[in-house]
Amino acid sequence: MKPTNNTGQNLYKKAKKIIPGGTHLLSKRPELFLPNLWPSYYSKAKDCNIWDLDGKKYTDMSHMGVGTNSLGYSNSKIDDEVHSAIKKGNMSTLNCPEEVALAEKLIELHDWADMVRFARTGGEANAISIRIARAATGRDKIAICGYHGWHDWYLSANLSSGENLDNNLLPGLEPAGVPKGLTNTVFPFNYNKIDELKKIITDNPDLAAVKMEVVRSVEPKEGFLEDVRRLCTENNIVLIFDECTSGFRETYGGVHKKYNVTPDLCMFGKALGNGYAITAIIGKKEIMESAQKTFISSTFWTERIGPTAGLATLKEMEKIKSWKIISATGKTIKDNWRKMASVNNINLEITGMDALATFVIKSDNWLKYKTFITQRMLEKGFLAANVVYSSTKHSEKILEKYFENLSEVFEQINKFERDIDSVDKHLISDVCHSGFKRLN
Amino acid sequence: MKPTNNTGQNLYKKAKKIIPGGTHLLSKRPELFLPNLWPSYYSKAKDCNIWDLDGKKYTDMSHMGVGTNSLGYSNSKIDDEVHSAIKKGNMSTLNCPEEVALAEKLIELHDWADMVRFARTGGEANAISIRIARAATGRDKIAICGYHGWHDWYLSANLSSGENLDNNLLPGLEPAGVPKGLTNTVFPFNYNKIDELKKIITDNPDLAAVKMEVVRSVEPKEGFLEDVRRLCTENNIVLIFDECTSGFRETYGGVHKKYNVTPDLCMFGKALGNGYAITAIIGKKEIMESAQKTFISSTFWTERIGPTAGLATLKEMEKIKSWKIISATGKTIKDNWRKMASVNNINLEITGMDALATFVIKSDNWLKYKTFITQRMLEKGFLAANVVYSSTKHSEKILEKYFENLSEVFEQINKFERDIDSVDKHLISDVCHSGFKRLN
Repeated sequence: MKPTNNTGQNLYKKAKKIIPGGTHLLSKRPELFLPNLWPSYYSKAKDCNIWDLDGKKYTDMSHMGVGTNSLGYSNSKIDDEVHSAIKKGNMSTLNCPEEVALAEKLIELHDWADMVRFARTGGEANAISIRIARAATGRDKIAICGYHGWHDWYLSANLSSGENLDNNLLPGLEPAGVPKGLTNTVFPFNYNKIDELKKIITDNPDLAAVKMEVVRSVEPKEGFLEDVRRLCTENNIVLIFDECTSGFRETYGGVHKKYNVTPDLCMFGKALGNGYAITAIIGKKEIMESAQKTFISSTFWTERIGPTAGLATLKEMEKIKSWKIISATGKTIKDNWRKMASVNNINLEITGMDALATFVIKSDNWLKYKTFITQRMLEKGFLAANVVYSSTKHSEKILEKYFENLSEVFEQINKFERDIDSVDKHLISDVCHSGFKRLN
Repeated sequence: MKPTNNTGQNLYKKAKKIIPGGTHLLSKRPELFLPNLWPSYYSKAKDCNIWDLDGKKYTDMSHMGVGTNSLGYSNSKIDDEVHSAIKKGNMSTLNCPEEVALAEKLIELHDWADMVRFARTGGEANAISIRIARAATGRDKIAICGYHGWHDWYLSANLSSGENLDNNLLPGLEPAGVPKGLTNTVFPFNYNKIDELKKIITDNPDLAAVKMEVVRSVEPKEGFLEDVRRLCTENNIVLIFDECTSGFRETYGGVHKKYNVTPDLCMFGKALGNGYAITAIIGKKEIMESAQKTFISSTFWTERIGPTAGLATLKEMEKIKSWKIISATGKTIKDNWRKMASVNNINLEITGMDALATFVIKSDNWLKYKTFITQRMLEKGFLAANVVYSSTKHSEKILEKYFENLSEVFEQINKFERDIDSVDKHLISDVCHSGFKRLN
């Protein structure tokens, strides 16, 4: 566990010198877990196991590729199809037929949707949906609720006040490099606060779209999603559900199917390709057709792996009803966290969809505790902090081992909270970061 | 050749109903080639051969995946590495070490560059480079020369006049859905017209960046690139070379190495992964570090296939010196076009880098001729119009067969030009589109 013996940490030190920010996704920054000790890089991943660059094996009880691998890493059902697509050629001057098949499948799963566009990242899918909504309405302004990527349109919310996006998952997002002409085009509202959205609509009769995550931390209040839908319909505003994260976690498709509220556009990503890059925008014909009035085109949106992986993932999900498995697993995890917290007198707050379970310990020492949990669990062979995105490969046996080990850590935290012991004495890493921050 | 027997055309008809615009890249629209007869979709691609959905084999003498596959389709040297990466897991909660190795390699190839960021599409890489330049300078305005993707920042050039981008490769790009707050932030100048750039700089002392293709249709005039560099340096403007298309076609890296002019940032895409999605922004440390002042992050930028393919492609390119092979091939193609045109008294204009050879017949009937060429060559087993992106798999034997067949088509066009025969009598497809256009 010494940093000097950690090949991944050494590589990360090199990476920070040649890749600004160190990684390509904030959520994969070692500093968000265990600054000096996180293994950082992997050599191999299978089911819910990850091997680091020194060949050490860990069980992933964290975010499973930030939610991409709900069917586990290296799932042969998907990988076999991808291998076969590569053998037939990943790219050519002609188009791949799989993109049409995947579009058909997504429409079949969402009876309100008629048309589909694909991209390869969530940020792109977000930007495409905004472009289409703006083109369809001829208006520019957007109301948002949630996290929607790194693009100009979204970060511009922070141009008028640097704190606008603080409640939208990632505090500290600076809009440096976002053109100031976008000031006052994007307005955030808080989840379940319908009056905030009403005010935005009243103040801005020229709103093109409401873009939101259907559900993230907490359940929608009764009538909230219905009210959002009604307000959009009444004001000719395009309602866009960003289901990049929530999609395929609780239903075979968008979680909006569970709540019976229909958007005009909806986006999927992450789980859709079980670890392969594919994202989708689905929508009603009268809105989606506006994509033809504007230019939305990219070379690598035509490669074959993405839609192939999407089709294979959907097939396997349907076969095993993965959304039921991962939700049940997530519920078990939450139940056990609750039990452990109760036994150890820890003030635990649990949030998130079951399959995206998250906890926070209500204590001034929270970040230190989080660091301690990660450090201790790493020693025990787990990648684990306070978030578990469950996969179909998280078996009962794995969960039991996880609970057993985490329970010991919670006992220790109980001692910290009762001042019998001090967390500082135990930490052998710097305290983890809580969000976006410039690295040295 | 009847549309009814063309499985690809039938699938495309279905695609247009559920995918607005039909395809995900404008350049892969069947209407740009042979509206009613283009095979549209592929089942298999190998070397420079493509099989359509009916199993019919064609030799690709067109854009080889829009320039992605300079080492040919399904190149085993790259595919073997990709298969192996997939076996070890394409995604995990940890990062893939290949991204650091690829960053190192790109820096090694460009001694002026210190840092690298990756994305998965060219549009993203363009948007990232613009964000970094704006963050580095604290300014918003950009001068552009060339084609730089579908994003808001670029299309906004058409907000003040719908024709601004007409000389930048794609006429008819409507800025529908691009926020009007971006009006007058982006200013196009024509290639080799240094006075146009000078005027933009004089009129806009708050220019953040000059973004341009180093070379596309014609060679730079003596001193042009040097003057651009000097103007940028004198005015603290970030110079960004978009080498998504030109990269690795004439040198082992950016074509700017040939001209000995150094940008501050440079982007690569297309050929970098030989058909796999990977794009890169490389740059000087003092500029690139500004990526840390802003938020640039995406889940699928962390998948493993992209950098794995990049590394394998660079290795194979280095080994066989692919840029020399494809440039020599392209030169042979241009020479033979010139010869055929001369023999047949056809007024041919040839442009483009050798490896991206393009011709136009100077005639009012050009679009009909282009359609005729594509139609006749398709009958002869070629995907061929007026653009050839050459690959290392275009052997002498293949070229000879191509010249032989194209020569017959040119003889026919000679008859059309001399009014001995009429092209209309021969066309069994609608005339091809010349650019961006709404589909019915």
